[in-house]
Amino acid sequence: MTILVTGGLGYIGSHTVVELLKNNFQVIIVDDLSNSEKFILDNIEKVAGKRPVFFPFDLKRKELLTQVFDAYEIDGCINFAAYKAVGESQEKPLDYYENNLFSLINILQEFKARNISNFIFSSSCTVYGQADQQPIDENTPLKTPESSYGKTKQMGEEILKDFATAHQRKISLLRYFNPIGAHPTALLGELPIGIPNNLVPYVTQTASGIREKLSIWGNDYPTEDGTAIRDYIYVVDLAKAHVKALQKLIFSEEETVIDIYNLGTGKGSSVLEVVQAFENANQVEVPYQICERRAGDITIAYANADKAEKELGWKAETSLEEALRTTWEWQKYLESRNN
Amino acid sequence: MTILVTGGLGYIGSHTVVELLKNNFQVIIVDDLSNSEKFILDNIEKVAGKRPVFFPFDLKRKELLTQVFDAYEIDGCINFAAYKAVGESQEKPLDYYENNLFSLINILQEFKARNISNFIFSSSCTVYGQADQQPIDENTPLKTPESSYGKTKQMGEEILKDFATAHQRKISLLRYFNPIGAHPTALLGELPIGIPNNLVPYVTQTASGIREKLSIWGNDYPTEDGTAIRDYIYVVDLAKAHVKALQKLIFSEEETVIDIYNLGTGKGSSVLEVVQAFENANQVEVPYQICERRAGDITIAYANADKAEKELGWKAETSLEEALRTTWEWQKYLESRNN
Repeated sequence: MTILVTGGLGYIGSHTVVELLKNNFQVIIVDDLSNSEKFILDNIEKVAGKRPVFFPFDLKRKELLTQVFDAYEIDGCINFAAYKAVGESQEKPLDYYENNLFSLINILQEFKARNISNFIFSSSCTVYGQADQQPIDENTPLKTPESSYGKTKQMGEEILKDFATAHQRKISLLRYFNPIGAHPTALLGELPIGIPNNLVPYVTQTASGIREKLSIWGNDYPTEDGTAIRDYIYVVDLAKAHVKALQKLIFSEEETVIDIYNLGTGKGSSVLEVVQAFENANQVEVPYQICERRAGDITIAYANADKAEKELGWKAETSLEEALRTTWEWQKYLESRNN
Repeated sequence: MTILVTGGLGYIGSHTVVELLKNNFQVIIVDDLSNSEKFILDNIEKVAGKRPVFFPFDLKRKELLTQVFDAYEIDGCINFAAYKAVGESQEKPLDYYENNLFSLINILQEFKARNISNFIFSSSCTVYGQADQQPIDENTPLKTPESSYGKTKQMGEEILKDFATAHQRKISLLRYFNPIGAHPTALLGELPIGIPNNLVPYVTQTASGIREKLSIWGNDYPTEDGTAIRDYIYVVDLAKAHVKALQKLIFSEEETVIDIYNLGTGKGSSVLEVVQAFENANQVEVPYQICERRAGDITIAYANADKAEKELGWKAETSLEEALRTTWEWQKYLESRNN
């Protein structure tokens, strides 16, 4: 079967492409390289032993997308292509709405026209906002996210649900918690552009001396050590969940499927615990300073991921320390490339 | 000042263009005629004594839109262009998301690039869903609408709020209740395409013999006569509110303005009351039959429109019977055109 992977050279995308290839899917990547680099394609080939087809263009270019669908018999899509920086989305909301919604709708129009089913959407735990209860299961009421980024995810979910219902298609909405880590080969990982927005890339760059100090935004949250708690999920575990979710759609005998899964470990870790785990795993020091809370940050979010375990036979298997060890190896790889 | 009116040959659009021209605004209409006809432009000229500039194209054609913004110094926009049939939106959700969101975002990108403020958005009381209390004021919590049409309105509001906040612009979100009636000259009104979705066009076509019988969807609602209650607002009153909302934005000394107004009469009328009022106003008979409730229909929705009165100096002035009289005159005009 042939799967279109948009944003397939991105962080989660590239890891998922490797897992798809391992499971004998044909993969076609469309990625405009706005948040990745071409060497990732070479590295996918090194890791998986196969080179996926790759088209470098922006999915807003409908006519190019149509050509890809004309040229290949596509059986499904995993749609990673999206802008994803929360802070940037507040400064450039239109670009987020345009990029994230137009690309989604353009693909779905092709699905509709060609009677293709099997669509997997990268959603996020941001759709829950600061949930009233922890852990968060899939029935936790959604709240309007604070950021335009988060709103594009919630809107994407609504568009897909309406699409699946109207046209009898199979979709899976995967709500990621906080992806971390890199491929065990150290050939794939997150490519931070500019100053990292997320904790683990910042920790990593601080350990390597690129950043002077990690800023911890608030240690007066109502948690055990006062720092905010998240659910850090290892990227390879996350990638494997996509293959399972896709296989479930493909093998389902229902015409219309709307699956929703939380993808997390089920365990919350505080910022200080992550810093500590990074130091332990890699025997390095991460200097940090405590700063004021950052507007819009929530106190705590971690998953109840039982549904994915029950229905997909998937669960997170990699420890926080192990994930953070791969991050450090990837950082060393990136530095060796630059020298 | 020059105002771009998208969908300016549509039902509410054409009435608003007339009021803008009366108030000495220059008007540029972009309308793809997907839900209107060219003679409406001639009739606008007959009514207002001026002919607005008109471009017939689809707002998804970004390059044409850019040309319009290049050619004219545009000071603001009233954006009526949107698909609006609730039922159809359930069958073709992608077309609704694509048409309603792409056109909005394309215009806003021009606003952003050229530093234009003053944007008025056609929203709808559908964003409230079945509200927990009546009448509905602007602080009533929103609910996710059932229809894709309604969701495009809610998403449009979110996009505009984020846009105004990020780029310091002035926007006004006008939540229409149920627009009815036609221009007193009988030269402008709603052009029903196919079987009407809304009550008043259906009543009108039944009175004129085009439809055999009006179907009343449910007479077992918890209301006085058992039929559903809505707030019917006369289209010319509604059009005038747009001019007031626009003037408020233009004269506001704030950099960022996010106005939200309910536009309704403040009075609910049941389906049977509307039928009765139509018969009284026009001395015609409207045969009807009672049918099962229609899925998705809510029991009751009427506006608290005090905010628009207080802040815009606007309120509905035309009675239900008077509005229904204009509808009937318009119907007779349409029939005379066809003969």
